[in-house]
Amino acid sequence: MTSNAHLLERRRRLLGGAYRLFYTEPVHLVSGSGVWLRDSDGKTYLDAYNNVASVGHCHPLVVEALATQAATLNTHTRYLHEAVLLYAERLLELMPDALGNVMFTCTGSEANDLALRAAKVFTGGTGIIITKHAYHGVTELTAGLSPSLGAGAPPAHDVYFVSAPDPLHDGNADGTLFASNVRAALERMRADGVTPCALLVDTIFSSDGIQPFPRGALRLAADEMRAAGGVFIADEVQAGVGRTGTHMWGFARHGVVPDLVTMGKPLGDGHPIGAVAARPAIFDMFGDKARYFNTFGGNPVSARVGLAVLDVIRDEGLLENAATVGAAMEQAVRFLQSREACIADVRAAGLYLGAEIVDTATGAPDAVRAAAIVNAMRADGVLISNSGPAGNVLKIRPPLCFSLHNVDRLASCLESSIAMSA
Amino acid sequence: MTSNAHLLERRRRLLGGAYRLFYTEPVHLVSGSGVWLRDSDGKTYLDAYNNVASVGHCHPLVVEALATQAATLNTHTRYLHEAVLLYAERLLELMPDALGNVMFTCTGSEANDLALRAAKVFTGGTGIIITKHAYHGVTELTAGLSPSLGAGAPPAHDVYFVSAPDPLHDGNADGTLFASNVRAALERMRADGVTPCALLVDTIFSSDGIQPFPRGALRLAADEMRAAGGVFIADEVQAGVGRTGTHMWGFARHGVVPDLVTMGKPLGDGHPIGAVAARPAIFDMFGDKARYFNTFGGNPVSARVGLAVLDVIRDEGLLENAATVGAAMEQAVRFLQSREACIADVRAAGLYLGAEIVDTATGAPDAVRAAAIVNAMRADGVLISNSGPAGNVLKIRPPLCFSLHNVDRLASCLESSIAMSA
Repeated sequence: MTSNAHLLERRRRLLGGAYRLFYTEPVHLVSGSGVWLRDSDGKTYLDAYNNVASVGHCHPLVVEALATQAATLNTHTRYLHEAVLLYAERLLELMPDALGNVMFTCTGSEANDLALRAAKVFTGGTGIIITKHAYHGVTELTAGLSPSLGAGAPPAHDVYFVSAPDPLHDGNADGTLFASNVRAALERMRADGVTPCALLVDTIFSSDGIQPFPRGALRLAADEMRAAGGVFIADEVQAGVGRTGTHMWGFARHGVVPDLVTMGKPLGDGHPIGAVAARPAIFDMFGDKARYFNTFGGNPVSARVGLAVLDVIRDEGLLENAATVGAAMEQAVRFLQSREACIADVRAAGLYLGAEIVDTATGAPDAVRAAAIVNAMRADGVLISNSGPAGNVLKIRPPLCFSLHNVDRLASCLESSIAMSA
Repeated sequence: MTSNAHLLERRRRLLGGAYRLFYTEPVHLVSGSGVWLRDSDGKTYLDAYNNVASVGHCHPLVVEALATQAATLNTHTRYLHEAVLLYAERLLELMPDALGNVMFTCTGSEANDLALRAAKVFTGGTGIIITKHAYHGVTELTAGLSPSLGAGAPPAHDVYFVSAPDPLHDGNADGTLFASNVRAALERMRADGVTPCALLVDTIFSSDGIQPFPRGALRLAADEMRAAGGVFIADEVQAGVGRTGTHMWGFARHGVVPDLVTMGKPLGDGHPIGAVAARPAIFDMFGDKARYFNTFGGNPVSARVGLAVLDVIRDEGLLENAATVGAAMEQAVRFLQSREACIADVRAAGLYLGAEIVDTATGAPDAVRAAAIVNAMRADGVLISNSGPAGNVLKIRPPLCFSLHNVDRLASCLESSIAMSA
């Protein structure tokens, strides 16, 4: 029995049937550094997928902050501690002025759940608009707002679905279509006698197939929701913390100031940190009705780790790197697109790239070939994944420290993997 | 402006109105070691409250495991990794054989939320029974099952309330009253046309005033719920991981095997770890309907930390310590009770003790005096808190490494604080 087969058997036996692994042949990782990962056979992989390791795997300054604070004090927000305040200040400095408060959780799921609880209290409404293939978390509430999880997660109460922007297929280049979809959903809500609460969107629509365009669509849509008395919640678990290169947050690319901003995955370079920024009026009204205490949220260790991640992004120029290297990555994949008919579209913002794979004969979405490409790249030592309603969009989302040299390796691996998957 | 006043102002301005602090004069902690904490003025506190720091603040072996794994690899359960499997094996070894699977989250809230999602799929029911002053978390679902949070958290759908066991006031010594309360709630459910899903209880009823007795009450109540087609979920966030001294889990004191067990606070000695153990049939059915992925849950760093905590409990004999020192703590507080009429009851299991404070003239619950005692102890350098529906139960729940010497200090501080609060 090989080591991996043994791990697979133990995993199935111990963890049960709800877990999934990446790749036809799962990867057994044992160490990581920067953009590199190593498996139990000593094989090295270029990580072009993991945004959780936002500033690179095992960044020494992040590990040092973690270890130092964990050896000093790890307690909670019912005592005073300066680290959580310093971290709150740093996060809010990176936000529009209107977002004056931040609360801490441990995960993006908890962040979305909390933002929705606060939005319900603030608006008095219950109607929530999300996209048709959204993903917002794994709590009962957020799983119910995650149709991309499939039929197993029953829809939340008073949820209304809209199509995500998709200029390749819907032909709309100015964002008015998404706004009119939201307006139509609000009309359905009104007809049902449901009071609007929130428009909740992942600002790069990753599970809807990675849709960074048209810019401005979110501003127009947020205007519709606000005119109806609801709030706009920007889910920055995917696009946030420098990912798009031009801006720290995905919503900023759309020229909109959200009422609430939820954060997760990339905040802690792997350490469990989530957060919700909000207009103070929202948290004040929530706080008048309910107290909130998240045992581990905003603890001194998490706060020091979060601060270290923001320090590294600033000191290593990772926002600028995401812009520069992201542009090169897009150019490289576009060059492949010019030669490979199976790539129907390339969509990117900074270091977040989606490449739509289609059947070269029919032009139809080709999830089988997308999966074949992903698995061929894994075999060749480059980690990416696939996404989207039809599962045919290559999802390329490397750590922010990805280099031009890494782009060359990614592109050559993608080229050979496309050839091998034909 | 004093340092604390400045921190309070920044906190209110940055974090908003939903956060609460302990004590009339909040404590500004800067370091911790074992059962000791230190504030910014260099004052030392004996920690007789924090179960999160289960094996002691900043335990060197836990910090070492954290730092070593964080410097090696921190990724997620979509790749193979041995640490999560070793941790799953160790946790399940400590459970009854029927509980053969475990899934990982980051918090106790997420654990309860996941257990309820799985229970709903498994039973096809929605009716949930909880106690009248329960606390089970901060997600929308679990906050809706936490009446102790007050009116700000709207009750979840199909929730039914029962009184917690309270032998001092309800006079029932054999647990049949709690079981008959559950049976009556099931009858109300039936009358409403609601299908039973779960009985969910904190196995030491901490927010209901700390009620470790009568032993066996949970077994009888679980039998009622199972006979009606629902499952029994033991919330071990409070009583679990060795706290009660005689057993690793609170449910075991009651001679019952739960269908699902949820864990949180004490698992990681401060690091965010939650978990749900279950009968495999439950997670298999859940997994057939839905996939589950918690980005940070069960990551290699959390798994190594969780393993280190279990190692320390075993190697330092902390379960036995909780029994021995807990018995001495109970004896010391009972001795005070024999001399202080304001202590109406002392209830303890291992290192979890509740002492009910009443008005010496009327015998009525005296939350004001309980708070005065808590604040006087804080001023004298010992940290405890108060709990219960009337807020009059002193809540004493120190790290598991509490010593007999620490008990002396706690008891003398409690004695003088009772005198000063008269």
